Amino acid sequence: MGSIEGIGSQNWIPNQTTRTEIVNTMSSINVGLIGFGTIGTGVVRYFLDGRGEPHNVRLAKVVDSDLARPREVSFPHLTDRVEDILEDPKIHVVVELIGGENPAKEFMLRAMKQGKSVVTANKAVLSRHMKELFAAARKYSVDLAFEASVAASIPIIRVLEGFRGERITKLSGILNGTSNYILSQMEQGLDFDAALQMATEKGFAELDHSLDTGGGDARDKLAIISSLLYDSEIKPEDIYCEGITSITSVDLDFAAKYGVEEGEPGYSIKSLATVQMSQDRLEMNVYPALISKRHPLASVRDELNAIYLEGELSGPQFFQGKGAGREATTSAIVSNILGVADNIRQNVTDGLPSLESKVNLKDEYQIARKGYVRINLKHAPGSIAEASAIMAKYGFNIEDFIQRRRFQSLVNDEVVIPDIVTVEPLSYSTLEQALTELEQSDRVDGKPFFLRFKQ
Amino acid sequence: MGSIEGIGSQNWIPNQTTRTEIVNTMSSINVGLIGFGTIGTGVVRYFLDGRGEPHNVRLAKVVDSDLARPREVSFPHLTDRVEDILEDPKIHVVVELIGGENPAKEFMLRAMKQGKSVVTANKAVLSRHMKELFAAARKYSVDLAFEASVAASIPIIRVLEGFRGERITKLSGILNGTSNYILSQMEQGLDFDAALQMATEKGFAELDHSLDTGGGDARDKLAIISSLLYDSEIKPEDIYCEGITSITSVDLDFAAKYGVEEGEPGYSIKSLATVQMSQDRLEMNVYPALISKRHPLASVRDELNAIYLEGELSGPQFFQGKGAGREATTSAIVSNILGVADNIRQNVTDGLPSLESKVNLKDEYQIARKGYVRINLKHAPGSIAEASAIMAKYGFNIEDFIQRRRFQSLVNDEVVIPDIVTVEPLSYSTLEQALTELEQSDRVDGKPFFLRFKQ
Repeated sequence: MGSIEGIGSQNWIPNQTTRTEIVNTMSSINVGLIGFGTIGTGVVRYFLDGRGEPHNVRLAKVVDSDLARPREVSFPHLTDRVEDILEDPKIHVVVELIGGENPAKEFMLRAMKQGKSVVTANKAVLSRHMKELFAAARKYSVDLAFEASVAASIPIIRVLEGFRGERITKLSGILNGTSNYILSQMEQGLDFDAALQMATEKGFAELDHSLDTGGGDARDKLAIISSLLYDSEIKPEDIYCEGITSITSVDLDFAAKYGVEEGEPGYSIKSLATVQMSQDRLEMNVYPALISKRHPLASVRDELNAIYLEGELSGPQFFQGKGAGREATTSAIVSNILGVADNIRQNVTDGLPSLESKVNLKDEYQIARKGYVRINLKHAPGSIAEASAIMAKYGFNIEDFIQRRRFQSLVNDEVVIPDIVTVEPLSYSTLEQALTELEQSDRVDGKPFFLRFKQ
Repeated sequence: MGSIEGIGSQNWIPNQTTRTEIVNTMSSINVGLIGFGTIGTGVVRYFLDGRGEPHNVRLAKVVDSDLARPREVSFPHLTDRVEDILEDPKIHVVVELIGGENPAKEFMLRAMKQGKSVVTANKAVLSRHMKELFAAARKYSVDLAFEASVAASIPIIRVLEGFRGERITKLSGILNGTSNYILSQMEQGLDFDAALQMATEKGFAELDHSLDTGGGDARDKLAIISSLLYDSEIKPEDIYCEGITSITSVDLDFAAKYGVEEGEPGYSIKSLATVQMSQDRLEMNVYPALISKRHPLASVRDELNAIYLEGELSGPQFFQGKGAGREATTSAIVSNILGVADNIRQNVTDGLPSLESKVNLKDEYQIARKGYVRINLKHAPGSIAEASAIMAKYGFNIEDFIQRRRFQSLVNDEVVIPDIVTVEPLSYSTLEQALTELEQSDRVDGKPFFLRFKQ
């Protein structure tokens, strides 16, 4: 995305004479776009192709801090002054595509104060300031539309809005395309680094991939979804989060074979963002998990996103599509622009929730989850005995203890073999103590890793 | 669904004094339900459970022709006079759940004329009278909402409305749960009759299953979807349609193995409803087809419905959920009721397309499709030669000619073996002549059957 640097708001003085003009049902709606980066280029191209015309919607101005950057398309009304959009009474809709918390949030608030509706793809701002932004939209009787902020082309926000009369008891999503691409490649046999490199070469992973592979990106999106589902202000930091960087080929190999002898189709490993209401407490988490190949989420390949949910009346539902990329994101933005334009002409707004409900959050550390511990044991008599003794001390009820000799390696001239120990459900707080003690044993190489089954 | 018999409209006289009352943004919205059958019971239960109250929406009256029928739930304001709803100025929304073309259509038109919005699950009326009903909704400034008419719980109508700015180049759906359930059972080894019986026992198939297994139900739904997608009046009879009744275990066995030796995952057989714009002509068809197990539609099991579509910007999208059943259908109806109630309070309506665009339809008989011919050949020297000669005459370019001896049977004391002949794309008009000539050969038992690959 592009960025607007150096455009401070401190000099901006509210000016009621620039209040956005009133329109009627036949009016042309004018759009101002802030941020002429990758996604912005997609939106500009859409309008340059004349595709806004049948809807009587035109792109009037584009703002970007960098006027000189070479671009695939040029737009005649390009400026580097954000005031040219925010203070133009003829602009009805502001599309914010600069990303990041600031100054994006400030621009959105200023636009709404001027009576302009806002369309944004900005999950970072939304997930952290949703309540304040929604309140501003209500106060100034404008729309704030953000379909593109979650799962790009999948119209999940629209779908969830349509389920207002329904109780969604559980939702699980693959919300980060980069992580899913990497795990898909690892399932084909690549190791993490090689898979990450492929993702970078294909343009799925950014130079700093930590938000993707660390789970932060999916967590922001889950915060947005959860807030909408439970009409409550849920922040990213309320959500337990683990990335995929600890996953190795040993895990994928084990997953593919697990249960196959018993006639099951095996498992995949997916980074899942899950929200679930359980005994009046909300469980939310982002972590990689083993998921049966029977489950629709298991077959979501490469950079695709998907959402699985269970409605009390509607039953299980599954949605899959492109979660990133210029065209896919443009489709969501354009859908929002046209919807907002219709609302402006009819002088109505879509209702936004107040997010004032209080919900009790369940502490992920206290929840017992089924999973396995992967532990690198030195290949010598007594290693398994010692590891087993530590696990017994913490109450592990072991199902299987499987040596994965095929993945053995040499560490300081000693043979180290990864072992997979499947265990009955254990709370993460207990588990963490056990993992720490295991790590301290001189029979163990490195930090043991716990991988959960999909809840 | 229930039915209203014997309530004629000929005595009904428009009466402006019963015009539906005007509401404000705080008003309670009153719903009148026509048809207290299976689905109606789901809607009644929802409101009896108090779930309309948070939305300030109440179920005021229910009409059914049969007051005496024992029901799971009873509703205090039950009447057998449809006028009690249609002429009550305090009823703002009419939910039509009697099914069938008449008198449902007449009730919907009368309700709209009285200023009432209409929610319906009636695909038979919608697919045949959409343009007239949409025009009435616009004329009387009311909403006509019909999410439940296609794929029950999957909010596909809502999704398609959101894609207004997008070009959908192709859409393929599994829109009939009964057919999909039967084919799923056949994939597990049952023959058609046994699978049908299971579907009937589970309540998926009605006593007269011809609309389901013959494709007519899916065709109605595809007509609704296609009309919306291309803003054109498309009738069920515009759509080529074949049911699943000719599918046998031979086909499913062949499908599962096809391509497996080459490392492909094999094929499923699904009844697909497809609309596609190809060189400015619209192709629409409902037929069973071979579909690679790599495709998300191939793994849609049992009575589920699913829709796969390709958007020019959004790329491939896939939606899966329950396509029938009381709760799933209720979820769609409730979603519509709440959306319509919001609109009434804001004094707006959702825009409905005029359906006045002209599209050129492509004749399915003229389209070359890849597929195979299944032909029952008498097991005697010369049979294959004769069948091959007929096929050669009609220009069949044969890929494989596979004898399926495992499925041989005795017909009039002669051994008959089904053969699968995969052929390069052939137009159905050519094919039909060839199939007729093959059928007339005394080497052939019964009518040969052509099964297409998914286009």
